[in-house]
Amino acid sequence: MVQFSDIQEAAGRIADKVHRTPVLTCATIDAMAGARLYFKCENLQKVGAFKMRGATNAVFSLPDNEAAKGVATHSSGNHAQALALAARLRGVPAYVVMPSSAPAVKRSAVADYGAEIITCEPNLAARESTLAEVVNRTGAVFVHPYDNDNIIAGQGTAALELLTDHPGLDVVMAPVGGGGLLAGTALATRALAPAADIIAAEPQGADDAHRSLAAGHIIPCEAPKTVADGLLTSLGVRNFPIIQEHVREIWLADDPAIVAAMRLVWERMKIIIEPSSAVCLAAVLARPERVSGQRIGMILSGGNVDLERLPW
Amino acid sequence: MVQFSDIQEAAGRIADKVHRTPVLTCATIDAMAGARLYFKCENLQKVGAFKMRGATNAVFSLPDNEAAKGVATHSSGNHAQALALAARLRGVPAYVVMPSSAPAVKRSAVADYGAEIITCEPNLAARESTLAEVVNRTGAVFVHPYDNDNIIAGQGTAALELLTDHPGLDVVMAPVGGGGLLAGTALATRALAPAADIIAAEPQGADDAHRSLAAGHIIPCEAPKTVADGLLTSLGVRNFPIIQEHVREIWLADDPAIVAAMRLVWERMKIIIEPSSAVCLAAVLARPERVSGQRIGMILSGGNVDLERLPW
Repeated sequence: MVQFSDIQEAAGRIADKVHRTPVLTCATIDAMAGARLYFKCENLQKVGAFKMRGATNAVFSLPDNEAAKGVATHSSGNHAQALALAARLRGVPAYVVMPSSAPAVKRSAVADYGAEIITCEPNLAARESTLAEVVNRTGAVFVHPYDNDNIIAGQGTAALELLTDHPGLDVVMAPVGGGGLLAGTALATRALAPAADIIAAEPQGADDAHRSLAAGHIIPCEAPKTVADGLLTSLGVRNFPIIQEHVREIWLADDPAIVAAMRLVWERMKIIIEPSSAVCLAAVLARPERVSGQRIGMILSGGNVDLERLPW
Repeated sequence: MVQFSDIQEAAGRIADKVHRTPVLTCATIDAMAGARLYFKCENLQKVGAFKMRGATNAVFSLPDNEAAKGVATHSSGNHAQALALAARLRGVPAYVVMPSSAPAVKRSAVADYGAEIITCEPNLAARESTLAEVVNRTGAVFVHPYDNDNIIAGQGTAALELLTDHPGLDVVMAPVGGGGLLAGTALATRALAPAADIIAAEPQGADDAHRSLAAGHIIPCEAPKTVADGLLTSLGVRNFPIIQEHVREIWLADDPAIVAAMRLVWERMKIIIEPSSAVCLAAVLARPERVSGQRIGMILSGGNVDLERLPW
């Protein structure tokens, strides 16, 4: 299992390759929440998402002989872009398996970072067999988007920076999809702020992590329906035990609240966040009695949105 | 005339009342420009604009007996919001003269910060006579949006922070409207980076500063036509001599280039800037031969846009 020392090592490894993102505050939103909120701006990270941290840690953790053959993944989202850019920074190939249904804008974003895209039929079996074929053919190392120790350690560096800048937080929050960010955040927070509550936020329409925590075992995410399209995945087996051990609660937020929180951040903080980033704030604003007077750090996970298709 | 020491004093005076905004970089935009760009994010400042610096410095420079009677201005833009908030922070009244034609959203933004709004007919004579009446009636101190030494000194604190964080810049840029930000930026840059070039950027459709610099006297801005609606004003008499002395050149950018640069910043940097903030970047991207290999600091002046009416 990942240790805090892995996060510290990751922080050193990626320091000159990723942005040390700012932590912003907003008096207006604080007044609305009745709490003091510290926003760790991973939307301002390279490729517009915290995914750059884990991908960079994974790529630069490889010994030279393994790295030389490249890295591979299946993803049509931020992880694919992050892995492509991290591989380019190391000067090694990246192979990304994407379904033929992936939007052209996502394909070109990954291609722009220099990755080779391998198209497959849009179903799970085709995705996995295509990935296996690519790995066999190239010898590339498969880097899972979240169910991977180096990824978890890398994502934990965001909370490490947040708690270095603001040591006295009462609560640290992260959104949960596959659980890479949440597991890393939990480990960093438990080590650096042992008394702080670790709370996750999840869309009501993709509440598998909430139900998994209640059930004591992973319940897959089936037929999710939410505007927060970065949080549709099921929990990873490496992620779940960390979350079980450290996360106190998972708060749910419905889509109208997520969109309202997203727009509030755009209007008041002048930063662009994607819906998945707004779930923590939406959950906080819906629970004034739970957060009153608290100092709450929350990770804004990413800012990749289609400006032509805003959700309001 | 304002001295650099006034800017240093302003920095101390406002330090705990405004945000120390981050300086962001973007590898993709650097590659497009062929230069290394350092963006000082005053769009992330309180009230979403650098105007908060000058207004706070002006309000907190007043002796108690003067401050008690309040401050007044005529503005329907960011300065009005900034002055209203600064007055609220000091616990004194703010009076804002606004034309009856001002959009409801701007009126409510100023009212939300606790200012009293006095409506006048939408012409210059009515604005000035109404302001004079308010000042006579209340004893409030008039704080001009830019033609004011405390405002100039306050706006200069943005460049002071930028050059403290990044001492080795070759060029420092700011947009120019009335010249408050540009004059302050010029004084701070000349003191902290004597060898750096100070360059302004201005919309082609409101090029009065460019023409004033060429003519050697202030040419008023008449019938301006540009998307950069924060830069429509004419130069102030306190601002012009500072600009004449220190600013090497004013680069023009046309509206399509301004909108394209604005959108580039939204898409790649995930921050919201208003058109006026994009003029420097638009000017840089149009002059690859002038900026090649340079380290260029530029001030992103504000982020107040109507999300329902984006210019693309």
